Amino acid sequence: MSFDRLAPDVIARFAKLPSSCVSDACDKLAIPGQVDGLKPMLQGARICGQAVTLRYLPMGPAGGTVGDFLHLAEAGDVIVIDNRGRIDCTVWGNILTEAAKAKGIAGTVIEGVNRDVGESREYGYPIWSRANHSRTGKDRVALDATNVPVVLGHVRVDPGDVICADDSCVVCVPLSRAMDVLGIAESIDAKEELILRDIRAGVDLAEARKRHGYYALQTPGKA
Amino acid sequence: MSFDRLAPDVIARFAKLPSSCVSDACDKLAIPGQVDGLKPMLQGARICGQAVTLRYLPMGPAGGTVGDFLHLAEAGDVIVIDNRGRIDCTVWGNILTEAAKAKGIAGTVIEGVNRDVGESREYGYPIWSRANHSRTGKDRVALDATNVPVVLGHVRVDPGDVICADDSCVVCVPLSRAMDVLGIAESIDAKEELILRDIRAGVDLAEARKRHGYYALQTPGKA
Amino acid sequence: MSFDRLAPDVIARFAKLPSSCVSDACDKLAIPGQVDGLKPMLQGARICGQAVTLRYLPMGPAGGTVGDFLHLAEAGDVIVIDNRGRIDCTVWGNILTEAAKAKGIAGTVIEGVNRDVGESREYGYPIWSRANHSRTGKDRVALDATNVPVVLGHVRVDPGDVICADDSCVVCVPLSRAMDVLGIAESIDAKEELILRDIRAGVDLAEARKRHGYYALQTPGKA
Repeated sequence: MSFDRLAPDVIARFAKLPSSCVSDACDKLAIPGQVDGLKPMLQGARICGQAVTLRYLPMGPAGGTVGDFLHLAEAGDVIVIDNRGRIDCTVWGNILTEAAKAKGIAGTVIEGVNRDVGESREYGYPIWSRANHSRTGKDRVALDATNVPVVLGHVRVDPGDVICADDSCVVCVPLSRAMDVLGIAESIDAKEELILRDIRAGVDLAEARKRHGYYALQTPGKA
Repeated sequence: MSFDRLAPDVIARFAKLPSSCVSDACDKLAIPGQVDGLKPMLQGARICGQAVTLRYLPMGPAGGTVGDFLHLAEAGDVIVIDNRGRIDCTVWGNILTEAAKAKGIAGTVIEGVNRDVGESREYGYPIWSRANHSRTGKDRVALDATNVPVVLGHVRVDPGDVICADDSCVVCVPLSRAMDVLGIAESIDAKEELILRDIRAGVDLAEARKRHGYYALQTPGKA
Repeated sequence: MSFDRLAPDVIARFAKLPSSCVSDACDKLAIPGQVDGLKPMLQGARICGQAVTLRYLPMGPAGGTVGDFLHLAEAGDVIVIDNRGRIDCTVWGNILTEAAKAKGIAGTVIEGVNRDVGESREYGYPIWSRANHSRTGKDRVALDATNVPVVLGHVRVDPGDVICADDSCVVCVPLSRAMDVLGIAESIDAKEELILRDIRAGVDLAEARKRHGYYALQTPGKA
């Protein structure tokens, strides 16, 4: 139920990176971390934190509830909920938003849908999900397990994995590869910044890209 | 062509409720009111009003037009247009937005698509629809009937039904059940507010939920 | 690789028109110009310019890159990228945004997806695309050809065609029909403005529409 904690400065370094650089670093290391199609509710948010995972099942004859799970998470963590992409009932709403934000949770990523969207947005709490609805998951889904491997899109997420999310994408970095990905992502970000400086200084885009090896930044086996 | 009017204060009470509470009250009464997948054009809007309904058909050899129908609606009503989820041509645009707003219409809900999105947004007129397009429905669809039963998602909407919509969802409450749903929704909203107060006072979420019967708020047969 | 340039005042006249009027003019001339389902990243933007087109293919054994192509475009042009609706890897990001904006490009329309969405939005650069992602197209797609006929939705776009885009839609006007479409679109826009003036002056909507021939504005063969 627990996982190794990354040092706060590692998370802080990740949090400065756009998801595109983390994605490119995953590509370079052949890590399939990019999640297809989850959408941000809170425009402009960028979060990074370790995953606390939840797995839901459709409610069966034995019953069950959507559960209480926030005690599993620490400040800075990201709640990751796998409801199998189900879009007809929600697994997150206003009460969880307030309780999670009070606890300092970084944000929530849902393979499924959420409600109380306006309230969560006003509250400034970032959520990525498949879509929105108002129909509750209570009496429809049951919490099956916590801090087990789950799936976002086609991406496996293990407890403690690093979740980076912004307006473009949610990217999941396996915990065991976090430092490798971080180093490469920072290097790519630095090179992209050099290209941008060249462009701002009037250098031709093709020339600027060539100088800094743009076309192979994310290629496996290239420096 | 007409329907019973609810008292203005009933509508005002509904309008204070998030769609999630109305949805939970529908669940408690086994009313399938929640509409799947319509999206708000105007972020942050919350409306409530009685439905004036329109049904469209694809244009046939006999012709027809998209019709004039705003005279059917009164201030505070919600225009509900059933174009069968058709996303290749629109049934609402800028002129209807201005005319509807001038008349005090609360908003428009479309099982289909709309155009002049930016203009409607600037104008502050709330619309929920499947998507956006610019291709007109004129010469493509014909108004088939007004104030007849229509369908949003999988939800039947009869003339006069109460439509509640916000950033999360559109929910339709049958007119005959409006007072029952309203009472329960207000009760749920009040209990959720108590849970939020507890959380803000530092009470553990699980404890706060337990105190106020959170997991059965929407369950049929539970108090 | 080049195309006839429209006079700047022609583009300026197009740029004043909502996509719905351009769409209606296309309808009147039986031109299938309206593109289904591309979404704006930058709410409220309205652009108009001539298309510089790019065609991508999935990367094959022979390799290739996503290419450098901005030298093909002039200030005011619209970059149109056909990546066959592929949503699993991007063909536009932050560096292209900065370089394109520095060059005065009007905006970018993508039959596919883009990344660095937040950065492009903050930068004020308008992009229409199918969705968002962070996974790069580098090592996944290869630039196949520039300034060739491409496809957006079901619409053919030839180099130099006029692209009009706003919150509702992207519409493509064939270059050879640009002046015809412009004249009709301006006429429709003027008539819609008259209807709006009538409404604002208290005229009944049905009467205002009748006065100005609303229901046949876009009908082929009607004045």
